[in-house]
Amino acid sequence: MAGSEIEKLIELLAKLPGLGPRSARRAALFLIKRKETLLEPLAGALKDAAANMRSCSVCGNLDTRDPCAICGDEKREHGIVCVVEEVGDLWAMERSGAFRGLYHVLGGTLSALDGIGPDDLSIGRLVARVEQDDISEVILAMNATVDGQTTAHYVADRLAPSGIKVTRLAHGLPVGGELDYLDQGTLSAALKARRAAS
Amino acid sequence: MAGSEIEKLIELLAKLPGLGPRSARRAALFLIKRKETLLEPLAGALKDAAANMRSCSVCGNLDTRDPCAICGDEKREHGIVCVVEEVGDLWAMERSGAFRGLYHVLGGTLSALDGIGPDDLSIGRLVARVEQDDISEVILAMNATVDGQTTAHYVADRLAPSGIKVTRLAHGLPVGGELDYLDQGTLSAALKARRAAS
Repeated sequence: MAGSEIEKLIELLAKLPGLGPRSARRAALFLIKRKETLLEPLAGALKDAAANMRSCSVCGNLDTRDPCAICGDEKREHGIVCVVEEVGDLWAMERSGAFRGLYHVLGGTLSALDGIGPDDLSIGRLVARVEQDDISEVILAMNATVDGQTTAHYVADRLAPSGIKVTRLAHGLPVGGELDYLDQGTLSAALKARRAAS
Repeated sequence: MAGSEIEKLIELLAKLPGLGPRSARRAALFLIKRKETLLEPLAGALKDAAANMRSCSVCGNLDTRDPCAICGDEKREHGIVCVVEEVGDLWAMERSGAFRGLYHVLGGTLSALDGIGPDDLSIGRLVARVEQDDISEVILAMNATVDGQTTAHYVADRLAPSGIKVTRLAHGLPVGGELDYLDQGTLSAALKARRAAS
């Protein structure tokens, strides 16, 4: 087809989530045509990421420094810890701008099917953190999936002996959601969690 | 959200065709988690591509050498030249395995709307190539789009004075179809059924 260097580039691009073989070919051509504006900057950014990215030893966030910028931010509330499954979920919380505490990234969910047990996640480190640091509340912000909720239950059980306040995100209607398009589970949850109007 | 290095990486990934902001974030996390197996190899492949990729001075194909591997292949039929719009179309032809001649990449199509005239494409170079080299047939393999067929007509007119045999891919291409999206069987059939241009 083309030179082996292009083939190798296409093969690597095709491993990215969201890119198949065809779109990887398109992306490779796109990159090669934009050598100065995209190909070289991207090569540099990837090299920098490989050299400098590390997991925060406190919360598991990804950053170039350790502790990460969030853990090291004096202005954030260090007494509240939001537990999320993955770094991507942490980013989603940050984009919402609604949370000003710290995080704890579990690194996944419990999953009997995939053979992922408590020791594969950073649950022990969370328990130790709650015991050592001056933390007043742990918010469980796992995904509203079966695995996510199973994990949330397990983490809540593990934190119970410490007597700390453990909360979870509310389940209900998404903003802008229409009843007719919602699944029954969400509707039931929203109904159960109803509260006084104004 | 995250460190500025990740933000820069996400921003660059989001410029790739097929990746939006959300999938670029997923791809960035995916890469960072696979540092040795994907992130570093991809950084290296991009750097190699930036350093070594060049356009073939004969046909316009992309390769690490000039002339490219196809132009330099003694076993291919040097008397037949297949004219395509883009390098991606050349790759599609090669994947079909139905063509064993040489190529000529125009670099796009004539387009009044986008202000692309004959001088913006390598049409002059094709005419010179036909005059200088010992070429017996030129196959026009433009996309079956309005711009592609307009360009094919124009190229056929420009080649007419040379008296060379000019053919075009058979209709068999679905109307509006583009080479890069066709299955190999259709491409092979269209190549076999090529006929004299006007």
